[in-house]
Amino acid sequence: MKQISLQLLAENNLRFRMDRICARMAAEKAESLIISCNNNKFYLTGRIFDGWIAITADPRKILYFVRRQPELTGENVYRVHKPEDIPEVLAREGISLGKTIALELSETPYAMIERLSHAFSATEIVNADTILMGARAVKAPDEIELIRACAAKHDRVYRRIPHLYREGMSDIELQIEIERVTRLEGAIGIMRVTGNDMEINMGSVLVGENADTPSPYDFALGGAGASPALPVGADGTIIRRGVTVMVDTNGDFNGYMTDMTRTFIVDDTIDDEAKRAHQLSIDICRRLEKDARPGVACSDLYKTAMEMAEKAGFANKFMGHSHQAGFIGHGVGITINELPVLAPRSKSVLEENNIIAIEPKFVIEHIGAVGIENTYRVTADGLEKLTVSPEGLVSLED
Amino acid sequence: MKQISLQLLAENNLRFRMDRICARMAAEKAESLIISCNNNKFYLTGRIFDGWIAITADPRKILYFVRRQPELTGENVYRVHKPEDIPEVLAREGISLGKTIALELSETPYAMIERLSHAFSATEIVNADTILMGARAVKAPDEIELIRACAAKHDRVYRRIPHLYREGMSDIELQIEIERVTRLEGAIGIMRVTGNDMEINMGSVLVGENADTPSPYDFALGGAGASPALPVGADGTIIRRGVTVMVDTNGDFNGYMTDMTRTFIVDDTIDDEAKRAHQLSIDICRRLEKDARPGVACSDLYKTAMEMAEKAGFANKFMGHSHQAGFIGHGVGITINELPVLAPRSKSVLEENNIIAIEPKFVIEHIGAVGIENTYRVTADGLEKLTVSPEGLVSLED
Repeated sequence: MKQISLQLLAENNLRFRMDRICARMAAEKAESLIISCNNNKFYLTGRIFDGWIAITADPRKILYFVRRQPELTGENVYRVHKPEDIPEVLAREGISLGKTIALELSETPYAMIERLSHAFSATEIVNADTILMGARAVKAPDEIELIRACAAKHDRVYRRIPHLYREGMSDIELQIEIERVTRLEGAIGIMRVTGNDMEINMGSVLVGENADTPSPYDFALGGAGASPALPVGADGTIIRRGVTVMVDTNGDFNGYMTDMTRTFIVDDTIDDEAKRAHQLSIDICRRLEKDARPGVACSDLYKTAMEMAEKAGFANKFMGHSHQAGFIGHGVGITINELPVLAPRSKSVLEENNIIAIEPKFVIEHIGAVGIENTYRVTADGLEKLTVSPEGLVSLED
Repeated sequence: MKQISLQLLAENNLRFRMDRICARMAAEKAESLIISCNNNKFYLTGRIFDGWIAITADPRKILYFVRRQPELTGENVYRVHKPEDIPEVLAREGISLGKTIALELSETPYAMIERLSHAFSATEIVNADTILMGARAVKAPDEIELIRACAAKHDRVYRRIPHLYREGMSDIELQIEIERVTRLEGAIGIMRVTGNDMEINMGSVLVGENADTPSPYDFALGGAGASPALPVGADGTIIRRGVTVMVDTNGDFNGYMTDMTRTFIVDDTIDDEAKRAHQLSIDICRRLEKDARPGVACSDLYKTAMEMAEKAGFANKFMGHSHQAGFIGHGVGITINELPVLAPRSKSVLEENNIIAIEPKFVIEHIGAVGIENTYRVTADGLEKLTVSPEGLVSLED
């Protein structure tokens, strides 16, 4: 059998992650941290594998416990059949996890946490998801490069959208053609989310009034969906003149994501109110691109956007009409909804190399959703826009 | 806003589910049961919604608590902002949950279970997933009809596969074309799984030796995948003469699923050993179709299949070669991996209206995976085959 390395990260990139994790472990008084969630295993290895990761803060160590994948090898890689085998390996290596252990309480099922905390004789458990989501909010150099690569592919897909349109198409039919070219461009085909009650396929195409239908999921906009089994997004509405086509589809090409929305129209015969709201979305992005920089409160960015919407008379259409989302942006990375969140009561302050999506969207009655969404890197000088597709209302007929 | 019904199930179908759940609650001494997982909310309403369901066993009641979706209405539907609001509603209605409460311990994150058990002052918690997975293992009349509808669509997709093939295609390219026609046929685009460490996009196409690569996920076969971010299935192998193309792709068209595998070849120039192993897979299915009936132990079905593989000299290629899966079949329904499991140490006994997939597969060195998978309904007389696409090795060039 061909042996392959479990550990795909260069040393500096692993060190970057460990620095951030260990600083947060110290703040939470966690002596060790155990990872069992795929998203976090990927964060620390660049690979999804079957097993667990143990981290100790002092002395700083990272150990990998692999189940069922004999092909995976590397330094500090140990074979186990079950998590209960891990303490024996640690004892043999003379490594103590201490008594305060961080476990992924927000993402891991109760039964597995009980099992882990019993296996490791934890007397105190703290939430590893707080630590890891905080660590993941500022991206390492390799993550930024992967996200840049995503953005380039995402852009190539979006530029092809007008070529995919055929007269008489439904929203679902257009979405399927977008999914196909996204997959051909290399998308892995799933969209990872934080939180086990969020579900979506490869994204959302919202046409006309369907944009105003609430969904059970906490995305910025909803849509009825094609089935009560997945009630979000496209619902079979036929694309026609006079309504808008908002495309917010998958940008996961390598395990990291960009989030991008563009709005399309069949031709220029669209109500002026929709055009003004769309331009306002672009204006809000331009303003936040200047305002947002390290040290700025995320709640202030939300406030600025809301004030611009209010001043233009669009407050009751901002982030939905019948139902309004409570945020205008969010971190993006391994999952589509990372930290920080740009919301009125957010306590987060921007840091350099946050990757954030900003999505000031409006829902105009009888017409549909307008606006854009871009993914940005936070730099010392403001936001660097990563998603570069044309932002104006793009005609599908041209 | 248009009001829509939260509760899509006919009364007899809801009663069927409640009978099964309440019988299991009694066995586990649970006085009440709280649902927060999407899969189980869908099971009890026919719809994914944002909120919770509470069930009491005596007197038998079902209550729906909806958050953020003002359009959803129905009998016993209450509005809440958070789970902590539920006890107040119950008190007002004079309903007691008792002290032994069943919560979804295997599927719900630890933090949410802690929150629920605190909100409901549970003094004892039992595992609702044991109850619900047991209930879901035998399908209600409406579920069987939905699964039949899936099977028909799944069949239409599979019959088109030879028309999707073009010379020089990679496994991923073929998979993308299959995904497209599956979506056009109405598939919801995600594959729901039981267990939060399982991930897959719309399925798996395994060509040649890639079929023997282990994956981190507990599917019958693996495949390297196109990215370490989702290391399962197609890896870019070019489809050519002399290797096999195993297609095991999505059959979720309405929230319920069928699971079907068929094996394709470019033309008849395939090694005789592969042909014999493929026929053996069909023979195993034929045998189990007769043997399997209510009261038969799932472990016996596994044993029969393994004996047939051994007798034919294919034991070391059965369910993988380098790595062998420990089961030959599994329940199918809302998720792709339900109860019962056809495994050597399974304690399950078949019941009428179990829906099970049986997938005796072989991996032949240098050639690839062969075999079939069908979804069946367990009837008093044996198995009723729901997935009816042709089972022989199908030539892509014809």
